[in-house]
Amino acid sequence: MNHYDITILLLGLGVLLGVARIFGEIFKRMNQPAVIGEILAGVLLGPTVLGRIAPDAQAWLFPQAGNAAIALQGFTTIAITLFLLVAGLEVDISSVLRQGRASVLISVLGMVVPFGVGFAAAWFVPEWLGATDGAEPLPFSLFIGTALAISALPVIAKTLLDLKLYRSDFGMLIISVAVIDDIAGWMLFAVILGMIGKGAGAAFSVPTTIAATLAFAALMLTVGRWLLDRALPRLQAYTTWPGGVLGFTVAGGTICAAFTEWIGVHAIFGAFLFGVALGDSGHLRDKTRHTLENFISFIFAPVFFASIGLRVDFFSHFDPLLAGFVIVIASVGKLVGCGVAGRLAGMGTRESLALGVGMNARGAMEIILALLALSAGLIGEKTFVALVVMAIATSVVAGSLMEMLLQRKRTVRFFDFLAPAAFLPALGGEDRETALRELAAALAKSPGAPSAETVFSEVWKREQLVATGMGHGVAVPHARIPGLQAPLVAVGLARGGIDFEAPDGELATIIVMILTAKESTQMQLELLSDIGGTLQDHAVRTGVLRCKNYVELLASLKSAG
Amino acid sequence: MNHYDITILLLGLGVLLGVARIFGEIFKRMNQPAVIGEILAGVLLGPTVLGRIAPDAQAWLFPQAGNAAIALQGFTTIAITLFLLVAGLEVDISSVLRQGRASVLISVLGMVVPFGVGFAAAWFVPEWLGATDGAEPLPFSLFIGTALAISALPVIAKTLLDLKLYRSDFGMLIISVAVIDDIAGWMLFAVILGMIGKGAGAAFSVPTTIAATLAFAALMLTVGRWLLDRALPRLQAYTTWPGGVLGFTVAGGTICAAFTEWIGVHAIFGAFLFGVALGDSGHLRDKTRHTLENFISFIFAPVFFASIGLRVDFFSHFDPLLAGFVIVIASVGKLVGCGVAGRLAGMGTRESLALGVGMNARGAMEIILALLALSAGLIGEKTFVALVVMAIATSVVAGSLMEMLLQRKRTVRFFDFLAPAAFLPALGGEDRETALRELAAALAKSPGAPSAETVFSEVWKREQLVATGMGHGVAVPHARIPGLQAPLVAVGLARGGIDFEAPDGELATIIVMILTAKESTQMQLELLSDIGGTLQDHAVRTGVLRCKNYVELLASLKSAG
Repeated sequence: MNHYDITILLLGLGVLLGVARIFGEIFKRMNQPAVIGEILAGVLLGPTVLGRIAPDAQAWLFPQAGNAAIALQGFTTIAITLFLLVAGLEVDISSVLRQGRASVLISVLGMVVPFGVGFAAAWFVPEWLGATDGAEPLPFSLFIGTALAISALPVIAKTLLDLKLYRSDFGMLIISVAVIDDIAGWMLFAVILGMIGKGAGAAFSVPTTIAATLAFAALMLTVGRWLLDRALPRLQAYTTWPGGVLGFTVAGGTICAAFTEWIGVHAIFGAFLFGVALGDSGHLRDKTRHTLENFISFIFAPVFFASIGLRVDFFSHFDPLLAGFVIVIASVGKLVGCGVAGRLAGMGTRESLALGVGMNARGAMEIILALLALSAGLIGEKTFVALVVMAIATSVVAGSLMEMLLQRKRTVRFFDFLAPAAFLPALGGEDRETALRELAAALAKSPGAPSAETVFSEVWKREQLVATGMGHGVAVPHARIPGLQAPLVAVGLARGGIDFEAPDGELATIIVMILTAKESTQMQLELLSDIGGTLQDHAVRTGVLRCKNYVELLASLKSAG
Repeated sequence: MNHYDITILLLGLGVLLGVARIFGEIFKRMNQPAVIGEILAGVLLGPTVLGRIAPDAQAWLFPQAGNAAIALQGFTTIAITLFLLVAGLEVDISSVLRQGRASVLISVLGMVVPFGVGFAAAWFVPEWLGATDGAEPLPFSLFIGTALAISALPVIAKTLLDLKLYRSDFGMLIISVAVIDDIAGWMLFAVILGMIGKGAGAAFSVPTTIAATLAFAALMLTVGRWLLDRALPRLQAYTTWPGGVLGFTVAGGTICAAFTEWIGVHAIFGAFLFGVALGDSGHLRDKTRHTLENFISFIFAPVFFASIGLRVDFFSHFDPLLAGFVIVIASVGKLVGCGVAGRLAGMGTRESLALGVGMNARGAMEIILALLALSAGLIGEKTFVALVVMAIATSVVAGSLMEMLLQRKRTVRFFDFLAPAAFLPALGGEDRETALRELAAALAKSPGAPSAETVFSEVWKREQLVATGMGHGVAVPHARIPGLQAPLVAVGLARGGIDFEAPDGELATIIVMILTAKESTQMQLELLSDIGGTLQDHAVRTGVLRCKNYVELLASLKSAG
């Protein structure tokens, strides 16, 4: 690689990562999975948008051939391999085993029905699914079936976390089902890749590939799991912390990936299984997990997802009828399969529907599968684009539909309701009344707030009943106002301390004023418990007391814990 | 990239990382910098060793050309860029500014003298330094001067940490000097690369490159620093934590790297400066720093350092006379320059010498510089190998020589003296005497231990004077034995608790018995304070109490904190 190649490689990588992260953040803000924004970033930087506006600049920054192109492709291959390693770490086999029959029933029905629908459609009306002329019917139909049968574990896990359902029985059940589907889906796909020989470089015959894949999976999930569980404490005892475990994990995952690639299925299958086997060990420390997850999900994964958009022109290959058909059969298959299974397993109608909606989210997994199928020549660009659109559409609706069906609220954080003008880094008054007047005036500047006078009188009335000192130097004056649209929060710092009659006798230095709607007691309780939880850590309180403006306060609260 | 390319890329990467980490660990065990082991791993896997034993296997696993080779080279380029980004983060400009004159004097003299020695030698006797036939004298001499003038900030920082000198006045001074040397050295090298045009792809004339480099550096260290310091709190406030900052850091570093590569100096200079500017901000959280450092130093850096050994046959290009000459002039230059400057700045003779020895460590920086010079055609393979050998030799001796000169001891950890047989996961006795007898018997199994009877009677005698319950459920029975070669430690867990008369009244569940030499009071105090510090954390104690064997205990203690 010469001077020029290195420049282009690094620039392309930096731009891809930067734009992907920006769009990821924007989608997160809209309560959507970040991965959708990351894919969109690639569509913008690829032939679809940038290539139409400024084809020369696009071709210069992201060349299709040459050393920089090969190096970037190599990097994205490594990126997706490591991403699947982390996805594997998230899988908790032990809890799957604990869930027992219900999860097996739901996952089998939840896969068989959409698989059947997809297979039948691809078999009987392949042209409706954009089958290319030379496509062999059997692998194509098997692939479409598989593509419709899988679910996106990360999207589902994230949605459940948002709805505070992750650790509930329902949450653990749905996660177990997703795990089984994930493993089964990848194995099926591995078999299909084996069937078509995957073009140049395949070293083995089809039956050998299939047998080797199954043997490898069985071995990793039994002996491999056991060995890794025994190896981890030794690594932690005898090597540098955390470098020993990190190096071992990445090296092990990469070597397993090379192995599965060699036997004729894709590399990511090996990395995924290694992750599953390793993540199952109780000896894996949270710190190792977090370092891997943070770096890989925020650096490698965005680069990979954005790179998808560089390969295909999404505009010229978008066929609305095809995409619509895929979305319909995918959703019907999953909803019917999971819904019926849920009812059979004794769940209520709403829960069964919510289960179906949740499992219907295809997310990143579908896109990876589709990309591999495209590279392997199993499907054409039109089917690829339709599958990507289906993955995005099903993921986008899953969260809000589940929320509606289960009548759950998303987690609220008190600082989400804090307007910039409502933070007073240095309260002037030294007594409770003056401080509350100041805070009420600041809070009244928030959009939709009542007048300062109303705020003060309501809060003061409440304060007279029982003082709101929580202890540890935190006070939470609050009131409920009839007809308030959204909660309002103001924060004031009084470094000298003001007496709010806390049970521990400490003067309050951090004063958080809350207004909620009269109609919702729930919201007030949630906000109070969030404030208590966030500020109970001494280090967080010290950090907050150091803040000189709104941005610093938000930064300090967000990065707490 | 086809099937075969991907297999080779992933396998090569996994093997390189795995072997590099293993050798890194071995060298760490021997109190040597891990980077030496990582380089050695590459020498083993490269043409020097594996290429001699099994040339076909070597060429298959690490091909010199083709897609897999290009992709691996791209990955190592990204790896070294990110490594310099992290190295930049470690630089603390503010503390350099605080050190004032002494650090400027020492760094100027400490660079000018070795630079002069190197330049003169290369100018007058280029053949002694292995100058290739076509080499232009001026750039070659400038490069050798620079190569002798730099110091290895990471090696020095690590040595100071080991000797518990990092936060002392002496430590801060030596770090400041190393930082100034680092920045000056890289700028000098940037200028040299500019001078020789760096071959194919150079977009600018030499003066333009030099001017642009200086302007970029000046800008990054002033406006850039200020902007980044303002951007960080906003990023933390308005983006996902920690993904926003992580993505921003890597994307920013990579784009700056592309910029410096484009203006005609190497990419790593831009990443390094971005790191310096960002790392200076007080808003950068420790967690972000650690995630980046852990992943990059334990994953990317080992791959890069090992890949050096893949490029050159160290055996056939090793010229002992040349290497010896380089080591001598490098060491004389640094020792004289820093030594004299230290004396001038009012330091004692021992301190001045220790300063010279410390700054003499060239470590990873020298090797990176040498590799770039080799790729740019500035030096030949012989000079390259000699510089690598010099870098390793000076780094290896720095730690132990400084230790000797300053009469400092390395940090001790109590579990370093715990033999496998001396851990009793479940003490049988329920009273103090029985427990101590059990522990004494276990401790007596350690190599070099006195008899169980002696151990018990000494410890029991001490226990009668004042009971050794420390509180929080920890007890530390101990004694000093005349003529004991090395400290001995035994650990016993008594889940039911045994009364050691702790001031807080808690029964002891973790009992750590210590024997030290009668002659050294210091060691006993250090071990006691280490035990207290390590076990004061509730989570660590809970982890320890869960351990069922020696390996688990060691793993649990090592990964604490």
